[in-house]
Amino acid sequence: MGLQNFRTLATFSGFRFTPLVVVELASNVKEETITWLLSRIRDQQQNGGAELFAEQLGPSVEAQEKENPNVFLVGASWQRLLSGAEDVGLFKEYNDGSMRGFTRANKHNFKDFKGKVRHDLSDANLRTALQHFMPLSYFQQEKYSERAVLLRRLLSKGLLVQIFPLHEKEELKRLSFSWYKKVKLSLQPLDDIRHYYGEGQALYFGFLEYFTFALVPMALIGVPYYLFDWEDYDKYVVFAVFNLIWCTVILELWKRFSASLAYRWGTLSRKKAFEEPRPGFHGVLGFNPVTGREEPVYPTAKRHLRIYLVSLPFVLLCLYLSLYVMMIYFQMEGWALSVHDEDPTFWTGILLFIPSIIYAVVIEIMNLIYRYAAEFLTEWENHRLESSYQNHLVLKVLVFNFFNCFASLFYIAFVMQDMVLLRQSLATLLITSQILNQFMEAFLPYWLQRRRNKKMIRKVQKKRTLEDKELPLVEQVRLEADMSTYLGTFDDYLELFLLFGYVSLFSCVYPLAAVLVVLNNITEVYSDAFKMCQVFKRPFSDPAANIGVWQLAFEAMSVIAVVTNCALIGMSPQVKAYFPESETQLILWTVAIEHGLLAFKFILTFLIPDIPKHIQIKLSRLEFESLEALKKKPKKKKMQPLKREPSDGYCPV
Amino acid sequence: MGLQNFRTLATFSGFRFTPLVVVELASNVKEETITWLLSRIRDQQQNGGAELFAEQLGPSVEAQEKENPNVFLVGASWQRLLSGAEDVGLFKEYNDGSMRGFTRANKHNFKDFKGKVRHDLSDANLRTALQHFMPLSYFQQEKYSERAVLLRRLLSKGLLVQIFPLHEKEELKRLSFSWYKKVKLSLQPLDDIRHYYGEGQALYFGFLEYFTFALVPMALIGVPYYLFDWEDYDKYVVFAVFNLIWCTVILELWKRFSASLAYRWGTLSRKKAFEEPRPGFHGVLGFNPVTGREEPVYPTAKRHLRIYLVSLPFVLLCLYLSLYVMMIYFQMEGWALSVHDEDPTFWTGILLFIPSIIYAVVIEIMNLIYRYAAEFLTEWENHRLESSYQNHLVLKVLVFNFFNCFASLFYIAFVMQDMVLLRQSLATLLITSQILNQFMEAFLPYWLQRRRNKKMIRKVQKKRTLEDKELPLVEQVRLEADMSTYLGTFDDYLELFLLFGYVSLFSCVYPLAAVLVVLNNITEVYSDAFKMCQVFKRPFSDPAANIGVWQLAFEAMSVIAVVTNCALIGMSPQVKAYFPESETQLILWTVAIEHGLLAFKFILTFLIPDIPKHIQIKLSRLEFESLEALKKKPKKKKMQPLKREPSDGYCPV
Repeated sequence: MGLQNFRTLATFSGFRFTPLVVVELASNVKEETITWLLSRIRDQQQNGGAELFAEQLGPSVEAQEKENPNVFLVGASWQRLLSGAEDVGLFKEYNDGSMRGFTRANKHNFKDFKGKVRHDLSDANLRTALQHFMPLSYFQQEKYSERAVLLRRLLSKGLLVQIFPLHEKEELKRLSFSWYKKVKLSLQPLDDIRHYYGEGQALYFGFLEYFTFALVPMALIGVPYYLFDWEDYDKYVVFAVFNLIWCTVILELWKRFSASLAYRWGTLSRKKAFEEPRPGFHGVLGFNPVTGREEPVYPTAKRHLRIYLVSLPFVLLCLYLSLYVMMIYFQMEGWALSVHDEDPTFWTGILLFIPSIIYAVVIEIMNLIYRYAAEFLTEWENHRLESSYQNHLVLKVLVFNFFNCFASLFYIAFVMQDMVLLRQSLATLLITSQILNQFMEAFLPYWLQRRRNKKMIRKVQKKRTLEDKELPLVEQVRLEADMSTYLGTFDDYLELFLLFGYVSLFSCVYPLAAVLVVLNNITEVYSDAFKMCQVFKRPFSDPAANIGVWQLAFEAMSVIAVVTNCALIGMSPQVKAYFPESETQLILWTVAIEHGLLAFKFILTFLIPDIPKHIQIKLSRLEFESLEALKKKPKKKKMQPLKREPSDGYCPV
Repeated sequence: MGLQNFRTLATFSGFRFTPLVVVELASNVKEETITWLLSRIRDQQQNGGAELFAEQLGPSVEAQEKENPNVFLVGASWQRLLSGAEDVGLFKEYNDGSMRGFTRANKHNFKDFKGKVRHDLSDANLRTALQHFMPLSYFQQEKYSERAVLLRRLLSKGLLVQIFPLHEKEELKRLSFSWYKKVKLSLQPLDDIRHYYGEGQALYFGFLEYFTFALVPMALIGVPYYLFDWEDYDKYVVFAVFNLIWCTVILELWKRFSASLAYRWGTLSRKKAFEEPRPGFHGVLGFNPVTGREEPVYPTAKRHLRIYLVSLPFVLLCLYLSLYVMMIYFQMEGWALSVHDEDPTFWTGILLFIPSIIYAVVIEIMNLIYRYAAEFLTEWENHRLESSYQNHLVLKVLVFNFFNCFASLFYIAFVMQDMVLLRQSLATLLITSQILNQFMEAFLPYWLQRRRNKKMIRKVQKKRTLEDKELPLVEQVRLEADMSTYLGTFDDYLELFLLFGYVSLFSCVYPLAAVLVVLNNITEVYSDAFKMCQVFKRPFSDPAANIGVWQLAFEAMSVIAVVTNCALIGMSPQVKAYFPESETQLILWTVAIEHGLLAFKFILTFLIPDIPKHIQIKLSRLEFESLEALKKKPKKKKMQPLKREPSDGYCPV
């Protein structure tokens, strides 16, 4: 969106400004609250306002009684956005190719700064800047607690229905065309995705793509393995060794790739702003020991009590329940097998797969229910920071999901030691969960949204004919307000995590797993992209520098994969043949090699730098320059320009 | 040393300033080089000098012909030192109790700033500041390469003999009295040590003390174990479990303790200055990609070739040699045993210990020789940074020392499974190496220094009678110039590392080990303290924030300790009794529990914060304030003082 566009759209839509964010208040909010809120948004900064534009959205073409009149569009002047970009510490590419913190003072030294919005600050950046200025998270900077209290009060009383950024039809069309509408082999437009949705989203899609490519060699090895050694389980040793190296190497390389992306997008060297309490945090009003401001205080000891005395036992109970369900599954499995053995027909052959399918469905349902419970518990633990909340939630969900999905496989592999059943079980679990996921994640929301969309278009068409089937702004806003809210990348990463687990842990006994996951990932790219563009409200952008706690989760999984693959190798008949007389010797050797590999893995993590060298040099240069600048500053007043005698610089050694 | 003292001493010693650092040039340096160098030191900063004081040391009382006349004393004005303290980014305690970067502008807001040197900046800090200004590492800041070239040329041609800070007799006397001259139970005066020697030294002594205290519970448990269960090796399981927990917990707690110390001393939050190439670094002149300055450039690929094609094979060869020596030891052991078994007398009883003693001595000698080889190789690898040099040296030395000292014990424990021999071997190794160390480290240098000292005093006494046996400044400088150079904490840490290994790995079979190490540590404190004060030249201070790479080394050892103790437990007859029929079951259980413990250890490392909470809060507050200050700066010009209407701040929700 260029500056021209910026103005045109504003004029065209009947507003004095380009609306960027929608604020919806409940319909029963008092008139004076609205007036006060609007004045907060519009007032100049020195009066404690946010100095933004705000206007009420007019009624839609066919205004109904149930339609909420309290929908407001918020925008900002070009200057205000630039100052916002400076305040949140955005990094942009400088003239010399390095990334520097954006300042209005030397804005013209930034690359491609031509007065055009599109080239200066990406859309997502604009939104970050605006977000920073949003009245509910900005005004009354000084009186911190009041702000937090206000937001909580608005939310808890249901007065603030929602806040979300508007989609931009033109941009979105372009993006979706290059992203998923072309049927051709090409990489995803990561830069454009970042431009429209922000770094957090773009990193997820980057990781998804990277993971898919990383799986290709495994899939290529897997197919001949599957075709020619289908029943020859002895030969899986080579594949297990491959897995073991693969899962370590790809995660190390991803760290470097992710650092390159984050550097290019300016989030790598960006300083984190001071983290404020999450809106849901509550407690007795007290003083924050760090900021000295008044804010709710909640004792850490109390939180620890809740975590260790309630959450932890609850998680353990759930794990026990999951084990119990697993045992039922094995009983069903045994029953199906006995039926099949008694009188094997085509139908009993199918019956053999039924327990696994049921178990897979039950696992998905349990995961879903547990997810809600985990969210409730983590909310109840009352974490002060959003990051701490996220970490605790991820940890809870991860442990349970891991256990739920893999416990049966571990049991089959290491207790029952039945490789045929392991292969069958793995295949059923993988395929069923993929089908379920695709349905729940993409098809269902798409279908719902399509219905809603058609209804709205039909409604508008009643009044007047539409050109290009495009909705007027007012209808567009109403439509988007009705869209589902995108809940972040959590579920997407979780799905990838479990797929990574299936592939790295047990794919040596079922070499097709990698192929299946590659196929799944390709459809996942399309369905996720479609979902982002068409089904959900546009999310606020999140200036992430890496995939955060998920990197840790994947690394933990890769450690487990090393142990598991070593154990599988040790159990293989091929290896057992080398130790015909003594099982003890075999186990000791397996354990010794496994320890060596784990040690090697940790050394490798130290040896491979997390940031590629050329980026490290650029970062050091920036740091060096700021150090030099600091050094020179206080001396500037006193120091005369250096005039050296030629003899002065010469050392007569 | 107060400001009064500062002046008095200067007047008293016949200098216009208090001498702080001694620079000794070779006696054959040309007159014009000296003149040039002195002008570099004395010139004002705008002329490219260092703006320090420098004066030649006069001849000593009984001047001999061989005495070097080119000894210079360097000092600085009070203002110059303060500006140096600011430039190197010293942290001091502020009025409000927090630690802040020292600036001359608000020097009076720092705690206890009363115009007295002693209270403002510790001696070690003074020296850091001066070090920063030393001509050889400071002047011609702009022409970087020239400076590096100069220093190298001076050093390589042997023109610069040495640079070292002077001891301060009064301070030293006070320190040594409170440190090691009192015979009473008390903690070391860590703050005073840091004051005199700097943070690096003080952290070493802090760690030594901490380690000793951490060993006390183990020693207390060890004594009754030793007395009542001397031959009952079945009972070592409890002790092994204790070891296993102990070695994890004490390292985690040390991190927190070390952070507290570093915070109090102002090094925790201090920003590292840009690291410059080490003096020994050489290469083709090129441009540093970070600073853009001219400096020697050496390709990383070449260095990697040297590391992987020469250093690594060399280390492996040495390890093989060490194994070979070990095998010879076992042959000797076997021979001694056979002699004793044939005809057991008192003398053959003693003969049994001889191989172990010889082996212990050989190990020490091999370590010593290897140390020189490692230093040579690491120097040859031509690392650009001192830190990288240190890391590679530590890694090389650690691996070999670990192997050399513990290989035989591992062999006895896990291959021979002979617990009686293990105990005997451990005791001999430990006691012999302790005796050797104390002799080499403390007694020998002490005796040498004492002889030198007496000679000097006798020499002076010939000329005139001394009051209080105190030497005049000139003689003091000459005497200190002859003292040995302290080579850093490397050897001291290495010794602690090996002791930690003996205790954490195998002390369960020889419970007296902890007692021996405690006794050794107590004498170590005294001998190290004595060594620092009386035997060595005063070292330049090193503003360390932690024990650096050694923390990593100790943690690696604690991981090995967990594995070893698990294996020892698994091998114990007590545990074996639980699995009478199947050895496989026993091993699998041991391995499973070991994996669980390792996982728990890593989780624990995540759970326990490295920095205690109250310090974390102070650090965050500082960060928050600087963020706030940054936010306000650019707006200051435009913003009017905030005048809010009362109704403005009120939310009529």
